[in-house]
Amino acid sequence: MEPVKPYKKGADYSYTLGAFPTIELLKCRPQRVREVLVHSTFPEKAAMDALCKKHSIPVTIADKQISRLSDKENCFVIGVFDKYTEELQKETPHIVLVNPSNMGNLGTIFRTAVAMGIYDIAIIAPGVDSFHPKSVRASMGALFRLRHRYYGDFTEYRKEFADHEVFCFMLTGERQLTVADVPKPKRFSLVFGNEATGLPAEFANYGQSIIIPQTQDVDSLNLTIAVGIGSYMFTQGIQKKTE
Amino acid sequence: MEPVKPYKKGADYSYTLGAFPTIELLKCRPQRVREVLVHSTFPEKAAMDALCKKHSIPVTIADKQISRLSDKENCFVIGVFDKYTEELQKETPHIVLVNPSNMGNLGTIFRTAVAMGIYDIAIIAPGVDSFHPKSVRASMGALFRLRHRYYGDFTEYRKEFADHEVFCFMLTGERQLTVADVPKPKRFSLVFGNEATGLPAEFANYGQSIIIPQTQDVDSLNLTIAVGIGSYMFTQGIQKKTE
Repeated sequence: MEPVKPYKKGADYSYTLGAFPTIELLKCRPQRVREVLVHSTFPEKAAMDALCKKHSIPVTIADKQISRLSDKENCFVIGVFDKYTEELQKETPHIVLVNPSNMGNLGTIFRTAVAMGIYDIAIIAPGVDSFHPKSVRASMGALFRLRHRYYGDFTEYRKEFADHEVFCFMLTGERQLTVADVPKPKRFSLVFGNEATGLPAEFANYGQSIIIPQTQDVDSLNLTIAVGIGSYMFTQGIQKKTE
Repeated sequence: MEPVKPYKKGADYSYTLGAFPTIELLKCRPQRVREVLVHSTFPEKAAMDALCKKHSIPVTIADKQISRLSDKENCFVIGVFDKYTEELQKETPHIVLVNPSNMGNLGTIFRTAVAMGIYDIAIIAPGVDSFHPKSVRASMGALFRLRHRYYGDFTEYRKEFADHEVFCFMLTGERQLTVADVPKPKRFSLVFGNEATGLPAEFANYGQSIIIPQTQDVDSLNLTIAVGIGSYMFTQGIQKKTE
């Protein structure tokens, strides 16, 4: 196969950096995987070979390629995969991210969503690239456990999921999210704004505006923390897999 | 004054990068500030002069120093301050971080703690440097709103705060943290482990071990998210300043 080139947004492929996200990729999306590159010193090559053989995925020792694609010294495995798009489900809870601007945050949010049992994420464009190796790495591979999709604007998303109850997290939120008053909607969309600017004011008209109680000693919570607390509270009514 | 040298762990000073954390520093810890450096293009120099004048803090235009100390292009202000140590309070809720290893996470946790109304943070050594400019920047200056202190080990901390009820966040936690069963201790210490390794098993003996319910589709929550959800839940019983 031709050597894999460093990632560019326009490319039709991307890659996982590290064994953990690569295994997640192979478990959840084997049909998307083009090839797996391993370093000659990778101690678990036999196990990786076995996992890839099941899906007829080639495994190549490629020390130079790995060092060129990875900026970390301790990367031993890279999984190269075709990008994909897919539909969100109609009956499930959603998280909607409006214009997310940080790939590390996006990955952390994917991971948090999966932990909380939310497997459908809408991203309202413009937003950072979900398939960028940095997003994938920050998600620890959780990206492959869930469905995600970009929408041109919120209206486009809303049209497709008209039956979801919409909750917009805003510092001007009317309803406080408290333990004494946990919303228990049947289907819901939790909507969060950009890291720096939050949600535009008009989102107060798109659903119930809601605020996580916080002191006035900070300007706001970090986006990932807000998503974490919001997701946790809304899914408290849903059966978790560990329970 | 002599030019400020790039930060080193052993130094007796550190600095804020950017206007927002510098203003937090000046508001909360004016007596610690040595000087403020501003870029010649900083549009709000007059306001900064006024704020510093109240505390007789020198303000210097120092374009070269700023570009040397900052790795971001949009840094216009730097506040140089003396490091300090202080006591945690006895009657307040605490967060205890055991061996935190990432400065960005530490800063985010400071910010989250302040948002949730927790103003006392113990760090069990070894742990990353709370005064490193990266920690300070990630905290958005929240570091200056709270008290924090390093302890050699957990026993040393525990001896000083024997009346706190201790909750250790562990994947093997016995008690699930749920909306239906929110603990309401009078004083509490929320204890969190290292990003990669979590808390050592013996912490199950140091207090109530507790787990945030999560699916088995991720290995664990990100540390900052766990601290966010834990702090939020435990402080739900406490009056917030915004309420």
